[in-house]
Amino acid sequence: MIIIGERLNSTRSSVRKAFENRDRAFFESTAGDQVREGASYIDLNAAALMETEVEAMAWAVPLVQAAADVPLAIDSPNPEALEAGLKAHRGQAVLNSLTGESRRLQAVLPLVREYRPLVIVLSLDDGGLPDSPEAALAAAGRTIEALAANGCGAGDILVDPLVRPVGADPSAGKLFLDSLALIKKHLPEVRTIAGLSNVSFGLPHRRLVNRTLLILAAQAGLDAVICDPLDRDLMASLAAGQALLGRDPDLAGYLKAARRLPK
Amino acid sequence: MIIIGERLNSTRSSVRKAFENRDRAFFESTAGDQVREGASYIDLNAAALMETEVEAMAWAVPLVQAAADVPLAIDSPNPEALEAGLKAHRGQAVLNSLTGESRRLQAVLPLVREYRPLVIVLSLDDGGLPDSPEAALAAAGRTIEALAANGCGAGDILVDPLVRPVGADPSAGKLFLDSLALIKKHLPEVRTIAGLSNVSFGLPHRRLVNRTLLILAAQAGLDAVICDPLDRDLMASLAAGQALLGRDPDLAGYLKAARRLPK
Repeated sequence: MIIIGERLNSTRSSVRKAFENRDRAFFESTAGDQVREGASYIDLNAAALMETEVEAMAWAVPLVQAAADVPLAIDSPNPEALEAGLKAHRGQAVLNSLTGESRRLQAVLPLVREYRPLVIVLSLDDGGLPDSPEAALAAAGRTIEALAANGCGAGDILVDPLVRPVGADPSAGKLFLDSLALIKKHLPEVRTIAGLSNVSFGLPHRRLVNRTLLILAAQAGLDAVICDPLDRDLMASLAAGQALLGRDPDLAGYLKAARRLPK
Repeated sequence: MIIIGERLNSTRSSVRKAFENRDRAFFESTAGDQVREGASYIDLNAAALMETEVEAMAWAVPLVQAAADVPLAIDSPNPEALEAGLKAHRGQAVLNSLTGESRRLQAVLPLVREYRPLVIVLSLDDGGLPDSPEAALAAAGRTIEALAANGCGAGDILVDPLVRPVGADPSAGKLFLDSLALIKKHLPEVRTIAGLSNVSFGLPHRRLVNRTLLILAAQAGLDAVICDPLDRDLMASLAAGQALLGRDPDLAGYLKAARRLPK
């Protein structure tokens, strides 16, 4: 499972303040911590900075890359911030994210052509949030076609079936898992990705719900996850799941994760 | 998910001592606790008593049934102890367990004919432990045929695909899950059951491994589990899994289990 560390997101107030104060040490240590705990990519989101987002992104990308020595996921709803991040990035970044909404495609496809990133495709288009696995597959499929026409192949695509809060809709977990399975079946050449924390919005013991979803998604074939690698319960649950799914042949992954838990 | 409470097993030294001391209060409270925490059946095992197992079983069955008001799983390798337990039981008990080994079949099938219990069928026969899902299915299938010939229908059968320690064989979890899925597919008319604790033998943080397996098994369609319903982390993980699988339509199960966790 590919881990994309989610901690450098400006919706966290500590991160927003660190952006505002240009606190290099905060970014360096938070990035380094996540890599040490298993992240292969670091997500970077400055959207809460609003009008200064673009310059904040351009400032942080080289800094975080130098500290962490892994590629970054440039995360923004704002195409200008995406471009600033991609431009400042060495090597292949992750673009987080593209949807099938016409305006988003128009604004983001030129960046795909120019910077050749890995692209996270949300299964969402002008029709809104899909209400069935088939609709999720169809939405992702249309965006993948648009990407292919712009030179982005399946190997550079990560499809996110979108996790919605189970507290608002008790079938949301099943819809996500069924969408994931259908996408895996019909689009075996692309990889899949998910964020976790939306699923538990409004519920008690959110981290339990999040890590349970990760176990279930691993079983359904999820390839990558945007999560907090410093959550040791989460990482140990994932490691236990991978071991039980026969994906940890010498149990090294589980034993390492278990050693990091309190006794 | 049907919960069979595992705490009254004489391999636990406190239980063995309670049998030896004929400690009624211990049995009553342990049985009552398990039912209060969600058990629909109580497993009762006196095998560690050795030569006094039969009388211990006959003594405990009415006592535990009176205290818990649920059916019991009469658990023994010894056909005489099985008979003593079944004979003392009101209503339909669970016979734990039958294998396809010739000697076991010969000794236990007469009890099936006489007492009409639910029967736990281990996927194991004279060929030993199955080394593939297909072998597990075949072993279970032969025992189910023998049960059918003795008047025990599919509705009274629970097949256990057998969980082996992943610490000894890192593919053991996958073998169990694949066997479970194959049995669910080819024998949809029987129910499935598993014990959990074998899987984590020899590993650190065993309870984490056990509850992760339960989540994965729930996804694969497991119908019943022999476990400790007083393990609140286990029960909350199961509840979170069921909610995420869309099996808790008003989230009442999850919210109840989450309330029992420490803050």
